[in-house]
Amino acid sequence: MAVDQQRYRIEKDTLGEVKVPAEKYWGAQTERSRNNFRIGPPASMPFEIIEAFAYLKKAAALTNQQFNVLSADKATLIGRVCDEILDGKLDDQFPLVIWQTGSGTQSNMNVNEVIAYRGHVLNGGKLDDSEKALNPNDDVNKSQSSNDTFPTAMHIAAYMLTFKQTLPALKQLRETLQKKSDTFKDVVKTGRTHFMDATPVTMGQVFSGYVQQLDNGIRAINNALEMVRQLALGGTAVGTGLNAPKGYAKAVAEKIAELTGLPFVTAPNKFEALAAHDAMVELSSAFKRLAVSLMKIGNDIRMLSSGPRCGIGELIIPDNEPGSSIMPGKVNPTQPEALTMVCAQVIGNDTTVAIAGSNGQFELNVFKPVIAANVLQSARLLGDTCRSFDEKCAQGIDVNKAQIDEHLNNSLMLVTALNPHIGYYKAAEIAKKAHREGTTLKQAAIDLGHVSAEDFDRWVDPKKMV
Amino acid sequence: MAVDQQRYRIEKDTLGEVKVPAEKYWGAQTERSRNNFRIGPPASMPFEIIEAFAYLKKAAALTNQQFNVLSADKATLIGRVCDEILDGKLDDQFPLVIWQTGSGTQSNMNVNEVIAYRGHVLNGGKLDDSEKALNPNDDVNKSQSSNDTFPTAMHIAAYMLTFKQTLPALKQLRETLQKKSDTFKDVVKTGRTHFMDATPVTMGQVFSGYVQQLDNGIRAINNALEMVRQLALGGTAVGTGLNAPKGYAKAVAEKIAELTGLPFVTAPNKFEALAAHDAMVELSSAFKRLAVSLMKIGNDIRMLSSGPRCGIGELIIPDNEPGSSIMPGKVNPTQPEALTMVCAQVIGNDTTVAIAGSNGQFELNVFKPVIAANVLQSARLLGDTCRSFDEKCAQGIDVNKAQIDEHLNNSLMLVTALNPHIGYYKAAEIAKKAHREGTTLKQAAIDLGHVSAEDFDRWVDPKKMV
Amino acid sequence: MAVDQQRYRIEKDTLGEVKVPAEKYWGAQTERSRNNFRIGPPASMPFEIIEAFAYLKKAAALTNQQFNVLSADKATLIGRVCDEILDGKLDDQFPLVIWQTGSGTQSNMNVNEVIAYRGHVLNGGKLDDSEKALNPNDDVNKSQSSNDTFPTAMHIAAYMLTFKQTLPALKQLRETLQKKSDTFKDVVKTGRTHFMDATPVTMGQVFSGYVQQLDNGIRAINNALEMVRQLALGGTAVGTGLNAPKGYAKAVAEKIAELTGLPFVTAPNKFEALAAHDAMVELSSAFKRLAVSLMKIGNDIRMLSSGPRCGIGELIIPDNEPGSSIMPGKVNPTQPEALTMVCAQVIGNDTTVAIAGSNGQFELNVFKPVIAANVLQSARLLGDTCRSFDEKCAQGIDVNKAQIDEHLNNSLMLVTALNPHIGYYKAAEIAKKAHREGTTLKQAAIDLGHVSAEDFDRWVDPKKMV
Amino acid sequence: MAVDQQRYRIEKDTLGEVKVPAEKYWGAQTERSRNNFRIGPPASMPFEIIEAFAYLKKAAALTNQQFNVLSADKATLIGRVCDEILDGKLDDQFPLVIWQTGSGTQSNMNVNEVIAYRGHVLNGGKLDDSEKALNPNDDVNKSQSSNDTFPTAMHIAAYMLTFKQTLPALKQLRETLQKKSDTFKDVVKTGRTHFMDATPVTMGQVFSGYVQQLDNGIRAINNALEMVRQLALGGTAVGTGLNAPKGYAKAVAEKIAELTGLPFVTAPNKFEALAAHDAMVELSSAFKRLAVSLMKIGNDIRMLSSGPRCGIGELIIPDNEPGSSIMPGKVNPTQPEALTMVCAQVIGNDTTVAIAGSNGQFELNVFKPVIAANVLQSARLLGDTCRSFDEKCAQGIDVNKAQIDEHLNNSLMLVTALNPHIGYYKAAEIAKKAHREGTTLKQAAIDLGHVSAEDFDRWVDPKKMV
Repeated sequence: MAVDQQRYRIEKDTLGEVKVPAEKYWGAQTERSRNNFRIGPPASMPFEIIEAFAYLKKAAALTNQQFNVLSADKATLIGRVCDEILDGKLDDQFPLVIWQTGSGTQSNMNVNEVIAYRGHVLNGGKLDDSEKALNPNDDVNKSQSSNDTFPTAMHIAAYMLTFKQTLPALKQLRETLQKKSDTFKDVVKTGRTHFMDATPVTMGQVFSGYVQQLDNGIRAINNALEMVRQLALGGTAVGTGLNAPKGYAKAVAEKIAELTGLPFVTAPNKFEALAAHDAMVELSSAFKRLAVSLMKIGNDIRMLSSGPRCGIGELIIPDNEPGSSIMPGKVNPTQPEALTMVCAQVIGNDTTVAIAGSNGQFELNVFKPVIAANVLQSARLLGDTCRSFDEKCAQGIDVNKAQIDEHLNNSLMLVTALNPHIGYYKAAEIAKKAHREGTTLKQAAIDLGHVSAEDFDRWVDPKKMV
Repeated sequence: MAVDQQRYRIEKDTLGEVKVPAEKYWGAQTERSRNNFRIGPPASMPFEIIEAFAYLKKAAALTNQQFNVLSADKATLIGRVCDEILDGKLDDQFPLVIWQTGSGTQSNMNVNEVIAYRGHVLNGGKLDDSEKALNPNDDVNKSQSSNDTFPTAMHIAAYMLTFKQTLPALKQLRETLQKKSDTFKDVVKTGRTHFMDATPVTMGQVFSGYVQQLDNGIRAINNALEMVRQLALGGTAVGTGLNAPKGYAKAVAEKIAELTGLPFVTAPNKFEALAAHDAMVELSSAFKRLAVSLMKIGNDIRMLSSGPRCGIGELIIPDNEPGSSIMPGKVNPTQPEALTMVCAQVIGNDTTVAIAGSNGQFELNVFKPVIAANVLQSARLLGDTCRSFDEKCAQGIDVNKAQIDEHLNNSLMLVTALNPHIGYYKAAEIAKKAHREGTTLKQAAIDLGHVSAEDFDRWVDPKKMV
Repeated sequence: MAVDQQRYRIEKDTLGEVKVPAEKYWGAQTERSRNNFRIGPPASMPFEIIEAFAYLKKAAALTNQQFNVLSADKATLIGRVCDEILDGKLDDQFPLVIWQTGSGTQSNMNVNEVIAYRGHVLNGGKLDDSEKALNPNDDVNKSQSSNDTFPTAMHIAAYMLTFKQTLPALKQLRETLQKKSDTFKDVVKTGRTHFMDATPVTMGQVFSGYVQQLDNGIRAINNALEMVRQLALGGTAVGTGLNAPKGYAKAVAEKIAELTGLPFVTAPNKFEALAAHDAMVELSSAFKRLAVSLMKIGNDIRMLSSGPRCGIGELIIPDNEPGSSIMPGKVNPTQPEALTMVCAQVIGNDTTVAIAGSNGQFELNVFKPVIAANVLQSARLLGDTCRSFDEKCAQGIDVNKAQIDEHLNNSLMLVTALNPHIGYYKAAEIAKKAHREGTTLKQAAIDLGHVSAEDFDRWVDPKKMV
Repeated sequence: MAVDQQRYRIEKDTLGEVKVPAEKYWGAQTERSRNNFRIGPPASMPFEIIEAFAYLKKAAALTNQQFNVLSADKATLIGRVCDEILDGKLDDQFPLVIWQTGSGTQSNMNVNEVIAYRGHVLNGGKLDDSEKALNPNDDVNKSQSSNDTFPTAMHIAAYMLTFKQTLPALKQLRETLQKKSDTFKDVVKTGRTHFMDATPVTMGQVFSGYVQQLDNGIRAINNALEMVRQLALGGTAVGTGLNAPKGYAKAVAEKIAELTGLPFVTAPNKFEALAAHDAMVELSSAFKRLAVSLMKIGNDIRMLSSGPRCGIGELIIPDNEPGSSIMPGKVNPTQPEALTMVCAQVIGNDTTVAIAGSNGQFELNVFKPVIAANVLQSARLLGDTCRSFDEKCAQGIDVNKAQIDEHLNNSLMLVTALNPHIGYYKAAEIAKKAHREGTTLKQAAIDLGHVSAEDFDRWVDPKKMV
């Protein structure tokens, strides 16, 4: 980087002067953070957080205006910059990383500074004017603290991403699996427990189990969102609401709900909302629950489609790409692989979130950015991978009827149908004999004299066993 | 152990004959398992599971009778043994470990065998009779499979323990914290964020945050219990209900609900209920959420009571025991320590449960016992530690008013009250000057000429800042 | 429990008098702890810790005698009780739980009290004598603190259990797998990647991978033991060694080494040894590494032995018990199931240990008992399950040659051998044609004109591909 | 993105034709993957992996030339493109994501395609020539498979990053802490155990404990690197080395060692090296061990510097930025916060890696990219945060002597020095009396008549207690 050719202007904060890139809208505190926290790739603070801040700052300004603590002009100016952020016009103004102060203060100040200074420019000023139309702390941050804005942005971002991306993708996959369940409802196949042959099920029943898993996962996510829609804003520094007008908390939550079209409300207890992020822990766990489900589904589908000649091979999944750089003609279950890798990530993220969530102290939890980043990554990855798995794999799943029938007809566990007629012990004798001698169950049953051929045919019918 | 002096009788199963301790009610399969799985201490399968099986087997027998597939005599006999198990009369008949087959088949058979053979004795028979009044598989296990009984027992046990032990203890602690919140509602103290002095809060507000955390935790546990009350029973081997009468699943769940007085229902999808234990994953995560909350509460309380002379010392907690074997007169926050150790255990258990839950394959998850053991341990430990922490610590918490006042009056962060009057920057100047020079805020404010003495006293009043 | 019929004697500590069960050797502090910490089952503190304390206390007494701070009589008396503990004669004297103070002080005092009071009785005294021959603090705990004894006991216990149980069991399994690798060295079979058919390997090669995994796991455990053999003893209360004679730390570690026959040494930095338990974290992670390996091995073996008719079925494992309570004749891979359940537990335990390990503060980590309990559980379970898996499963593993050959001959991935001759793309054409048309590779190769029959036979020979 | 204005060329693979952006060097398989895996942000495959592939492909080509299976011209051409990659000239040619096939095949093919087609252009060809100078599979991938190249790249990347970034940063921090330990070696302060006042230590001793933690962490990382330096290359598809020349594995590892200057060797067992990534699990755990240590260090430092007036305040850390957007003059321990957030991430990543590592099946683990991404993120973040914490915090740490002295002189735990003189019980009486009455220990000791003033002064000297 040609750093020395960079032009600068001087900004200051309560610690003194700072050289800031001349053309950037951010100010002294953003620049300090950029220099003090060179940890991981730049600009790693999730952009969903920045967008959430844009809603928040606009709502805060409008509410401040409504409570007569901010002029209409300033409120309007703040709102205009927020709209620009939401329109993606200021994407390169947020260079900070996750690994900063644990309260996210510096990202709050990054947003405050960009809004103040960009607002000043929109208002006809110049970036190097020493006095500006908006002050980052006294105007943009009015009635707020990082301690209530960051958790509010975190909740807004998590709710929006989950509601708009994760859940729709999940429901899309659920619909496909439901359709497959319907389509395969008469395909009787051998069941498997302990990886061993068991009594029959239909492929439709197998898929109905997956649908139930996803339905339950959606329910858990929705339960968690009920907590996430509660916003800390109005608690200011330590939850008491110091320096915010009376009634501000409720009003600003309503404004955020109005601007986002989502059912945000003010949190019932601001001390909890600043010092603990259990709602995020709960959302992360709901994602983990889903990951646990998807891991099972992904594994089942790749095992059921294993082969083509030396595996189970009862399902056929789409061939999307050559599977091997050395083995010609090989096709692999790549979508289930991506899916299950995401699941491993989400489960680990949940550990991170639990540790971070458990480390709040006194009036503040200062592991906020790592909580936000992990929950948002889980939400994003689960949504994307569900959609990808759905479109590139699930929709194209078909049954391999020949293989299914061969397995079913060979299965010794059809013998279970005899239990009510001859008892468990005699049935076991039949199965063991057939296994040992490599014969059919029917033959073994007749040889042992436990069942007649007619009874066997009447009693042992896979179609009646599902 | 004087093993060679042990007397035996011969029992058999489908694999052949087995020598079983002569006086024990269990049979061949229990004995095989006992010998095949010498992993960890004996009898580690949680007793809550055995008790749940007693309810289950009694309900199954009565339902079988109702559907006319089991005689009234046999059903009654089965029920009598189940009652003995619930009365604690057969505690030494369940020697198996967690680390057995992953379906829990062997514990199901342990229960089946004990019921059958104890029933035979109750019926006037002798343990070494070759024919017995009840058959473990054909009578006691009728209309059932390990694959639906074990997850049912797991759900019954988890629901009962959580409902009867964990939640009441948690609510008891919640009530104490609420009382403390009320008692301390006027105790204004310095707040702390980032471990650094911040604007004031009341001690009542601090405790109100804890109450909110527990309320939210209780909510999450109740949400999970909604899933746990769904029972797999009726799915039999693979979810299809093979060999169970039509209508059995619903009827047997109602019977279990009746016997336990708890709102159990039949699971809507038996394929999910056998192959996935996401409901247990969800309950485990709800416990983890609670552990995350309790870790914060426990840490706060021990830090707030740190000292007595070189710490924060704003809370006084009961002295329950000498704290040190070498430092005379030392008293330690031992209850918060036990509490937070339990939290660490519960968070790790949640990882175990997630891994186990994600490893289901095809028609069955075969990590059932490890899931059951971890969820039940979390439920038990959380309940016990909440009660212990409540009775031995929380109830006795008091404030150290002198220390609180000294801290509050010294705190530089009272300066925040000046923001709306003189702006953030000038307020910062005052705080920095006072800090640098070791003076009071008031002195620094006057020296800098930013505020008059009268204004300072009017504006900076901790009582108005909470 | 008939508590009211219990007879008591009065003991006292610095907080006052306590009623103690008349016939028990423990004293006031043990009794307080028993009453204050009713969390989980009683006596849950791992007995390995108690035994380690016996070595420690004997070594401490002998070293105190050597440094002339304890009389020979007292040292001998202490040693006699320690020997009784090691002989299992005092097993019912240690009723405390894991979930006590996080320094383990109360278990240290339990041991101190039992040694002092049992010593007094051995010396001819009576339990209700008000003065006793040994004082728990001033004699038995001389030159020690809970803060250095508990971590020392933790290290001794972890080292001994790992060295005497875990590693031998692991090596036993490793030897069996090595033998299988040798036995199966010429059994050429289809390889599988992504669950899909791949180029051939020998079954011996497959098992050689498992052996390598275990060798590497053993190496990691040994690396961790290098840290665990360092003992905190001599650091006393905060690491400075206050109240211990100069040279005590080194001497007492040598004495422990002598008594145990294991290579214990004094830790190079006592501040680290009290305040951090990273050595235990490292050992736990080594167990986790092993669990990760065993999970893979267990899964492979159950999948390779899946069937008998609808799975992969290339391995045959022993039938140890009837597999199903409903499906007659079913046999399941129960040992791999127990094994993989243990692995899930060990991985979760590692999370617990990491959280507990990360929560040390200032001069002491007060999550010691939960760390000890989890590491010891992992060591115990891994050892037991390796032995069980070895004896009840691995030793009996055989190949199913017919099934292996059928798979191998069918596999389309033999086509890979043609790459160097005709290139990847033409080879892929052959494989795809054979797959599409259900023919052999040879037929497809000839039909496409890419290879002659003679060349095909010469080039495509599974035996040459391994 | 103006996608429709994008110009394309046609590339093909064994599945058929694909439209590829005209100016990009990648080919059909990269493009398929880009379209099939829209999961998370594009180009998320860590660039360290791409660089590692550049070393690998160059080494492979040179080794192929050496074994006479690739022409010198082709080998040279491949090497030239690899050098361009390492020079950062082709950074925009690697658009694939982590969440692709679990073998990383598509990233291997991305590299193969870019090398082949860029090589063709370097050779004077054009991107839309139908025949090109190098074939991605037959030339660039010669003697290789994704199954051995991806784990090799993973090991190269992990080793390099750890060796070049993580360890030096860690050692830099270790040196600073050692210097602080030396500087503060005579600063006697009150110790703290259980957050409660304890006997004295020096601040130098406190820091010596941190140094020991880091030394042990470095040792564990180095132990893990011994495994990581073993490379899978030469195993090809399933570990047998099919289609690679005899001796290739050893030679290519030596070539990689030569090109990188790092001590890479060929793995002793290729079946393990493809099917298990336990070495990465071990490295991840070594990072976790370090995270556990750093969490403790970070917490200690922020707690010791808490205040300025209502906390412990024994350390002074640098003021790097304004701490609060609402509380003027507030300064926070932001570097310890970033540090501990990274630790939470690394511990969670370790869970992800363990799960992914445990899920290998048969001849391949197909969770490779998620393992690589998490281990590399941990390595990167730990290195960066250690350097940041060192430069912005640790180097500037100073003691607050006045506060330290006040605490030390007040501490009741100095009474411990009396134990050897008057016994634990009388010493406890003194401490309790002083605590109860708010007096000094000396006063209480004299009042109780346990010690004379002269003896007290001689025996109780903090400087002699450390």
